[in-house]
Amino acid sequence: MKTKLKAELLQARLWQERKTVVFLSDFGSSDGAVSAMHGVANAVSNALRLDDLTHEIPQFNIWEASYRLMQAMTYWAAGTVFVCVVDPGVGSNRKSVVALTASGHLVVTPDNGTLTHIAEQVGIVEVREISEQTNRLAGSQRSYTFHGRDVYAYTGSRLAAALVEFEDLGPTLARHVKLKLEKGRIEGENTLVGAIDILDTRYGSLWTNISDEFLDKLGIHFGAMMQVLISKDGRIVYGYPVKLCRGFTEVAKGEPLIYVNSLLNLALALNQGSFATTYGIGTGEGWKITFSVV
Amino acid sequence: MKTKLKAELLQARLWQERKTVVFLSDFGSSDGAVSAMHGVANAVSNALRLDDLTHEIPQFNIWEASYRLMQAMTYWAAGTVFVCVVDPGVGSNRKSVVALTASGHLVVTPDNGTLTHIAEQVGIVEVREISEQTNRLAGSQRSYTFHGRDVYAYTGSRLAAALVEFEDLGPTLARHVKLKLEKGRIEGENTLVGAIDILDTRYGSLWTNISDEFLDKLGIHFGAMMQVLISKDGRIVYGYPVKLCRGFTEVAKGEPLIYVNSLLNLALALNQGSFATTYGIGTGEGWKITFSVV
Amino acid sequence: MKTKLKAELLQARLWQERKTVVFLSDFGSSDGAVSAMHGVANAVSNALRLDDLTHEIPQFNIWEASYRLMQAMTYWAAGTVFVCVVDPGVGSNRKSVVALTASGHLVVTPDNGTLTHIAEQVGIVEVREISEQTNRLAGSQRSYTFHGRDVYAYTGSRLAAALVEFEDLGPTLARHVKLKLEKGRIEGENTLVGAIDILDTRYGSLWTNISDEFLDKLGIHFGAMMQVLISKDGRIVYGYPVKLCRGFTEVAKGEPLIYVNSLLNLALALNQGSFATTYGIGTGEGWKITFSVV
Repeated sequence: MKTKLKAELLQARLWQERKTVVFLSDFGSSDGAVSAMHGVANAVSNALRLDDLTHEIPQFNIWEASYRLMQAMTYWAAGTVFVCVVDPGVGSNRKSVVALTASGHLVVTPDNGTLTHIAEQVGIVEVREISEQTNRLAGSQRSYTFHGRDVYAYTGSRLAAALVEFEDLGPTLARHVKLKLEKGRIEGENTLVGAIDILDTRYGSLWTNISDEFLDKLGIHFGAMMQVLISKDGRIVYGYPVKLCRGFTEVAKGEPLIYVNSLLNLALALNQGSFATTYGIGTGEGWKITFSVV
Repeated sequence: MKTKLKAELLQARLWQERKTVVFLSDFGSSDGAVSAMHGVANAVSNALRLDDLTHEIPQFNIWEASYRLMQAMTYWAAGTVFVCVVDPGVGSNRKSVVALTASGHLVVTPDNGTLTHIAEQVGIVEVREISEQTNRLAGSQRSYTFHGRDVYAYTGSRLAAALVEFEDLGPTLARHVKLKLEKGRIEGENTLVGAIDILDTRYGSLWTNISDEFLDKLGIHFGAMMQVLISKDGRIVYGYPVKLCRGFTEVAKGEPLIYVNSLLNLALALNQGSFATTYGIGTGEGWKITFSVV
Repeated sequence: MKTKLKAELLQARLWQERKTVVFLSDFGSSDGAVSAMHGVANAVSNALRLDDLTHEIPQFNIWEASYRLMQAMTYWAAGTVFVCVVDPGVGSNRKSVVALTASGHLVVTPDNGTLTHIAEQVGIVEVREISEQTNRLAGSQRSYTFHGRDVYAYTGSRLAAALVEFEDLGPTLARHVKLKLEKGRIEGENTLVGAIDILDTRYGSLWTNISDEFLDKLGIHFGAMMQVLISKDGRIVYGYPVKLCRGFTEVAKGEPLIYVNSLLNLALALNQGSFATTYGIGTGEGWKITFSVV
């Protein structure tokens, strides 16, 4: 079945009239690095469409790269190739890989955990190891620190342009690196427990790993009040009842609300304010959030 | 006449070989939100060109979104679709609309004032209300907080790809929301009075709402000195004579000048410096600027 | 020979099925200026591909614009047109030019030094002066301060769309403005001397003007320790032995390393840290760096 799915997905890719390469990195946009990657892809094939996911991933933050890839990837047409380069291990013996996802997308990336969220939430059909010696921009052999340009942009765009086939990039890899990923859960009869996965950076909302499906299971409806507890290393930082809303405008400006975010997880915000800044909340290890029916 | 113009404009749009969707928002570029919108458009039609106006609008600042749209829209080919999402009212009963402008551009946006400057300076031929139930990305029914992706990007790209016609998006709307917009004016025999509409963010220049056409009316030529008065809530913040220049290099580095900006309004700058930062000048309500012939 | 090369390069350009215009400026991305330039190009020809190098060049910093152009340009397909606008002299008598490079790329820019690094490292076949009167967006005659939109984007996109030929843009220019450019050198038997050209902004690494070819000449291999001295106006700011590495992971997190950067010059970094911030190092005049074999 896997083989058949793979064949179909690859076929679908070939049928697309114009292929797209989408770039993701922690390079920022103030120098020429991203444009050098676009340029390499353009030189590989002038028919490609080039776009970006973001290049503002905090430096070396593989977790956030993995999360952002999951946030946007599936909205693109099947067959789109993602070149994802947050690569603190460049020049080490970390592998270079290409993954075919169950959604028919391709991801070219260092094997350092960037595939974590995709593997969990979308599914990965097959991962292959890319040889950095043979899949490399001509003349780049003396460059050891910019695989984003020399290996990933080059290989990703050749894949999108059908100048190389997925199967020819290298041998199948049985395992790929995954970061530790916790899922939200129900505790007792009326409490949801989870982690603060990431901030909605621009607005300062907290995005949790608690799916909105748990609301149905606990019989909680929009309009309900829930007791929210946020702790860091066991010490409570925030503890108030907050209303579960469909939209931000259901509470006054500056007031808190629980809402279902665009990835269908529970999130916590201040209407037109920053919850994270106002209450000094962070993400990742040590932080815990619970929602209890009042 | 309106009907004929509309028909011609829409026809012109159909003739274009490749349609463009340009995105404008306050989402910033550090997460996956903008790329999810691009992805939705790409999945709607692989033939579309996707570009951006800016995503750095200050959060919830509808005025600035309206201004930036006016600053760039008319330079694009007629038929280009603009998806403009500064949407503090997402999930409320604010309407979703699509506007056909007198310049032949289409704007898909929440009806919250984003069309203000376009309506005043370009003209709007017709506004239609978009049903958020029928014009919505499949499977997004449980998502209430990201209409940019689920409704606007989806609808704007379907419009650009001619998968839906302007007339079929919803009923005509007699009124749409407009922000209060003041225009510069002549006062007495030799004074121009206006507001500081916006900053040229990167350089710190002040952009006023006073058209350069008033210079002709008062018989003022480049090279003239004008007395500039800037006040905040009636208190004078800046009051000096400044030279009206064609270009920045007509005064020494760090010196002030009056110039005609790229929208043909009067502006005030320091050559290679920031007028706004140096003198602590802001924009919007309470701020007033006058230019008088010395 | 020059004529033949030029003919071939231009021919190659015409054969490309789709032309690309890449934009570089100090405009930032928070207002509508960049989008107005893209729009002008789109209105010139809907067939063009539009992309960006960066718009985050520090204001008026021509040196950095020249450097970033060199960092990315050659990776793009021959025939690509670069519109480079860091233009503190807009409205003065500085010239507007178009350059044909030995790599077959075209650069449209004010003649203020933006071509410096390209001239030195890639080579320029011919420079022509663009008449700002005839090569100008229709209706922009009253606008004196945004040549990026009115002259450069317009001319660059017409060139890319083959609506105007290189030869028809204006007369050949015998000289064009170049900034002072120093090259790294060997001093004595075992010392490399150079300047800190620029920072790898995002990561805070120092990029020097010392080519990795000097390593071979001095018989220095990866793994060697070198004494690094950094001085500002003759006063030593940093002086320690540092290891020459292939990749960042050869030293512990936070430790310094010398490496060969993506332009094949010597660079200095802290693994996952910022060398520039940690030691207060800057770039340009007054700064000197030496590497000596220990």
